[in-house]
Amino acid sequence: MRPSGRELNQMRDVSIETSFTKHAEGSCLIKMGDTHVLCTASIEPRVPSFIKGSGLGWVTAEYGMLPRATNTRMRREAAAGKQGGRTVEIQRLIGRALRAGVDRVALGERQITVDCDVLQADGGTRCASITGGWVALRLAVNKLMKAGDVKMDPLVDPVAAISCGIYAGQIVLDLDYPEDSEAGVDGNFIMTGSGKLIEVQMSAEGSVFSRDQMNQMMDLAEKGTSELAEMQKAACV
Amino acid sequence: MRPSGRELNQMRDVSIETSFTKHAEGSCLIKMGDTHVLCTASIEPRVPSFIKGSGLGWVTAEYGMLPRATNTRMRREAAAGKQGGRTVEIQRLIGRALRAGVDRVALGERQITVDCDVLQADGGTRCASITGGWVALRLAVNKLMKAGDVKMDPLVDPVAAISCGIYAGQIVLDLDYPEDSEAGVDGNFIMTGSGKLIEVQMSAEGSVFSRDQMNQMMDLAEKGTSELAEMQKAACV
Amino acid sequence: MRPSGRELNQMRDVSIETSFTKHAEGSCLIKMGDTHVLCTASIEPRVPSFIKGSGLGWVTAEYGMLPRATNTRMRREAAAGKQGGRTVEIQRLIGRALRAGVDRVALGERQITVDCDVLQADGGTRCASITGGWVALRLAVNKLMKAGDVKMDPLVDPVAAISCGIYAGQIVLDLDYPEDSEAGVDGNFIMTGSGKLIEVQMSAEGSVFSRDQMNQMMDLAEKGTSELAEMQKAACV
Amino acid sequence: MRPSGRELNQMRDVSIETSFTKHAEGSCLIKMGDTHVLCTASIEPRVPSFIKGSGLGWVTAEYGMLPRATNTRMRREAAAGKQGGRTVEIQRLIGRALRAGVDRVALGERQITVDCDVLQADGGTRCASITGGWVALRLAVNKLMKAGDVKMDPLVDPVAAISCGIYAGQIVLDLDYPEDSEAGVDGNFIMTGSGKLIEVQMSAEGSVFSRDQMNQMMDLAEKGTSELAEMQKAACV
Amino acid sequence: MRPSGRELNQMRDVSIETSFTKHAEGSCLIKMGDTHVLCTASIEPRVPSFIKGSGLGWVTAEYGMLPRATNTRMRREAAAGKQGGRTVEIQRLIGRALRAGVDRVALGERQITVDCDVLQADGGTRCASITGGWVALRLAVNKLMKAGDVKMDPLVDPVAAISCGIYAGQIVLDLDYPEDSEAGVDGNFIMTGSGKLIEVQMSAEGSVFSRDQMNQMMDLAEKGTSELAEMQKAACV
Amino acid sequence: MRPSGRELNQMRDVSIETSFTKHAEGSCLIKMGDTHVLCTASIEPRVPSFIKGSGLGWVTAEYGMLPRATNTRMRREAAAGKQGGRTVEIQRLIGRALRAGVDRVALGERQITVDCDVLQADGGTRCASITGGWVALRLAVNKLMKAGDVKMDPLVDPVAAISCGIYAGQIVLDLDYPEDSEAGVDGNFIMTGSGKLIEVQMSAEGSVFSRDQMNQMMDLAEKGTSELAEMQKAACV
Repeated sequence: MRPSGRELNQMRDVSIETSFTKHAEGSCLIKMGDTHVLCTASIEPRVPSFIKGSGLGWVTAEYGMLPRATNTRMRREAAAGKQGGRTVEIQRLIGRALRAGVDRVALGERQITVDCDVLQADGGTRCASITGGWVALRLAVNKLMKAGDVKMDPLVDPVAAISCGIYAGQIVLDLDYPEDSEAGVDGNFIMTGSGKLIEVQMSAEGSVFSRDQMNQMMDLAEKGTSELAEMQKAACV
Repeated sequence: MRPSGRELNQMRDVSIETSFTKHAEGSCLIKMGDTHVLCTASIEPRVPSFIKGSGLGWVTAEYGMLPRATNTRMRREAAAGKQGGRTVEIQRLIGRALRAGVDRVALGERQITVDCDVLQADGGTRCASITGGWVALRLAVNKLMKAGDVKMDPLVDPVAAISCGIYAGQIVLDLDYPEDSEAGVDGNFIMTGSGKLIEVQMSAEGSVFSRDQMNQMMDLAEKGTSELAEMQKAACV
Repeated sequence: MRPSGRELNQMRDVSIETSFTKHAEGSCLIKMGDTHVLCTASIEPRVPSFIKGSGLGWVTAEYGMLPRATNTRMRREAAAGKQGGRTVEIQRLIGRALRAGVDRVALGERQITVDCDVLQADGGTRCASITGGWVALRLAVNKLMKAGDVKMDPLVDPVAAISCGIYAGQIVLDLDYPEDSEAGVDGNFIMTGSGKLIEVQMSAEGSVFSRDQMNQMMDLAEKGTSELAEMQKAACV
Repeated sequence: MRPSGRELNQMRDVSIETSFTKHAEGSCLIKMGDTHVLCTASIEPRVPSFIKGSGLGWVTAEYGMLPRATNTRMRREAAAGKQGGRTVEIQRLIGRALRAGVDRVALGERQITVDCDVLQADGGTRCASITGGWVALRLAVNKLMKAGDVKMDPLVDPVAAISCGIYAGQIVLDLDYPEDSEAGVDGNFIMTGSGKLIEVQMSAEGSVFSRDQMNQMMDLAEKGTSELAEMQKAACV
Repeated sequence: MRPSGRELNQMRDVSIETSFTKHAEGSCLIKMGDTHVLCTASIEPRVPSFIKGSGLGWVTAEYGMLPRATNTRMRREAAAGKQGGRTVEIQRLIGRALRAGVDRVALGERQITVDCDVLQADGGTRCASITGGWVALRLAVNKLMKAGDVKMDPLVDPVAAISCGIYAGQIVLDLDYPEDSEAGVDGNFIMTGSGKLIEVQMSAEGSVFSRDQMNQMMDLAEKGTSELAEMQKAACV
Repeated sequence: MRPSGRELNQMRDVSIETSFTKHAEGSCLIKMGDTHVLCTASIEPRVPSFIKGSGLGWVTAEYGMLPRATNTRMRREAAAGKQGGRTVEIQRLIGRALRAGVDRVALGERQITVDCDVLQADGGTRCASITGGWVALRLAVNKLMKAGDVKMDPLVDPVAAISCGIYAGQIVLDLDYPEDSEAGVDGNFIMTGSGKLIEVQMSAEGSVFSRDQMNQMMDLAEKGTSELAEMQKAACV
């Protein structure tokens, strides 16, 4: 039995509220259960120096947690004077994941920065950030296309992410914090709406797992990301 | 005529949604027009070293803006590696203002940290942070009193803040961003619900003002903070 | 009775020694009682990027305290790796105050940086920095005018600053450290030689004050800044 | 055809020179082709605060690259004032991987820090660091056991890592830099000597892959890590 | 001919004004020509952790330059976020030099921090800092002895420093900035009042020198430091 | 008797293995007894801004120690967020020393960065870095000359460095760590192959020395650097 009473292969309730803030070219508040992430996409004309003049676009991401998004208050990273290792690792993952779903030629030489800020955390914030981040990105690109600045759609397929893991010996989908903090193995799966793989990370801390368990996690992840992709499409209509 | 069509002495619409996040001992989302600030109050048993053993409590504040809270994306302070001068100035102001309304003997030797994070900015974020921050503080203190950890109420009177300024030659209440960015003189007034002054800051950039204008700003500020104090009380019931 | 034996409305002895250092375009050592601040004004051809090409000038300020300017040694900020919040707040105030007295069109596209370094502190260092900083600025501008680089005087009126506060229940002028550390309310008033207001900051820590007390502080401040403006003019002849 | 002329499932030549430096409790220089990493294991009595008093041990890792380990000189991280995101990500991975192979009860309340410093880089430095890091750890633990400080062996099974990827449309084992910089998909596989999984990371940058390709990479990884585990055992005799 | 018209073996005019600031236990303003350094000595009960409980004292130094001490304004180190390499090198030198003249057993377990802040620079600031720093230290120790906190004098012999160098092919004493910036070889000599050596640093940038030239510099340095030691003693009476 | 059993004027065994890494334009691993330093020279077309367009070349150096190069593990400087004072001092010394032996006109407008990374430390790492650094520099310049990019040899004479000091009352050559940590006086001598002086640093910590002792150290240093210069030449053939 899962602490939340969910079935082993059952995701938490998901909601995606678009245009949550007014300034960003694209934005949404994604809720996966009690995990709430505000995602914004900002279009900037300037690209990183290593692609200047190439005609290619760039998508990057930044991630943050409000100090009291968690059960006990964490130190504010801006006050600490640097982003922690976990933050850096997560924002690099979000950026790679979103870029994998972008046709950078079609995007043209501009940068879109996706900011994912966790207002409330209950496990799975990096997956929620990717799924919500894609929605913000989609909305920003829509604006570019409506304005005629981009002709061909650079986003062919949604990018969605979900966690799977081994909790109390069972393979479960979409771990919340009580499960995550007890799980021996924890994986994040990033896939396209059409079922292709973008990134897979499975990790055991003080434990090991078998190839068979890995395959069962993959099965659940395919189910989860395909459901999320439908919600992403619905939210962007 | 003000850009928003408001009367000279008219505040923006204000709403205060309490318990916006679940982990903090007190929290609210305050909206003053298009300025939206998430305020949380976190109770911690540990006090700063300079009052350890004194039996006195401490209230402090931290302030941040999400990178795309503003019209163009600002650099994330955690990535820049330090809080900017404006951030530091504002969070020191919020902390002083809230402390002025606290009976630190009654609070007892514990610290409450009020985090004010701007989700969307349209002028007046520091005033909204103080007004909303007091609500979060009030809710956290209520929890302490209900639990019997605090016997006498350390918050005798609400603390509210409002801006006044000289826009297009007129004294106006509660400047929004279009007014703020054009104003020659800009003031922030922090008062108690019973009309006492806590902090007054009036500042001219490339301009000067008269003592008479100062008095007119004070008049408007008294009106504004007294209205805000009523809303604070209503929100905390 | 004040610890120093001064009258309630009496400033400390003030002296302004110009050209205290030889390299800066303008410099002075200002002494307000035992508070000693070395102020230098440095002219640089380069302006901040946000006004490049505008034809407008810029005046900015930096503030520092030598580690043993105070009663007990403070950590050197350069060694600590950052300027503290108090330092940042003060140097922003000095810059704003001095800019308010400058005709930036007349100054032309150049920057003047005013450095205020406290050699010895006994309360009121920010006010002494502004008053002395204006003298250094005046001397540097004189040099520009003598050289014909600036035609019209961009400094129409002196800028001077003084503190007032409520000490032992009395409204007093120009608090020294023993008063400042005990005062319930503390205000800094920045005015022009002709009596116009530039910036007013009144602040209570753990206390409140009335509008009537505020007006009494304003009265003293007008007296103090008008006396200081006379001394500034005399020093620059 | 691979640039190096290797078979698709062929690793580079591997050598492990133990006790490369004299001060560390365990050390080796591991060479995987032209990738050379110096690994040292340092035993310290102090553990991180979150496990103090628990009786459990801790293993952690740090990673660095000499500035000219690479084809063009990179900025020294100590001079830049912080470790880059890639460095942080890699050292967290090494630490997790090694910890997964440690019985922390058997280790007892002490910390072993494994430093992996890349003297020369040609792709696959994180995998070489894990494989060589385990050898350094093994040697340090041997010292503890010989001294009687640890009774039961806390390292039951070697931990080894190898990369696989899709290069020019082919699934290949142990990518060198020319392959790595062109690969559409790149994975790192960390396994025990007995074939259990510890961590799997597969990542596509601007591309996607199928579950079938994932399985082929897993097959190669099992072959590679099992060969490496034999070499680790041989080196530690 | 030297730019200043001085003889080859002639120092600049030296003055030492003691008790320049009131808070420090010892202080002086030392002027060597146009080089002016404010030196303060601060007594603190706490010693560095590596000598805690040893009964030994510690003397350390910090060095800084005001931004406009030099001909063109330098960036403030506190604003830059770190002390530059030159600053670090100089303050380590000052600390070593002063410690060499201290009987740390006689001083007892306390720390004296000597701060040397350059108000105006014209070459030779590190030597002036050492010579003036010793005077500040002497005055602070006098206070300890007068109070009976130290019984035996820990300062047996003055420590003084002077520069010598090769300017326009000639060996000269006490280089000022115009000489220093042109000199091929530059040396700093730190000696006791009785003629013993504490530290010698001779350095050529893009040049070399002979052992004979080294000996001539030593001769001048002996003359210079012996004159300075007399002035130090006179100042401390 | 020296701890190592060496004669007073006897250096440790020295070996210089060139081309230790493949990417750098010049590299060597120098061993002076148990002190092992990896030196690489990297040619870059870009020079520091202060010589841009001058036609002159630049040589600079950076220094680092692997965390477990020493007997107990030191904190990694990249993790600490800055280079320590000792590191900064040493790398400035290496850069100055190498530049003194370079004809910067002949080198032409390019920069060579010499990285000296200590793999294992046993005293004298700065001297080994200079001696080995010159070899790496020599090899890199050879490459420039072979390619015809440099016509006239900018390195006329080797630059070598050795330590001398006073250990147990005796003047000794090339101190190892057990001697260095006990020595009352410690000197570093940098000379050319033809016996000219480049830099001399003699330093006493809590002690003093005589001019006669200084001369004896100089004698030993001449012997040591002349032997090292022969080995440098032999290694570069």
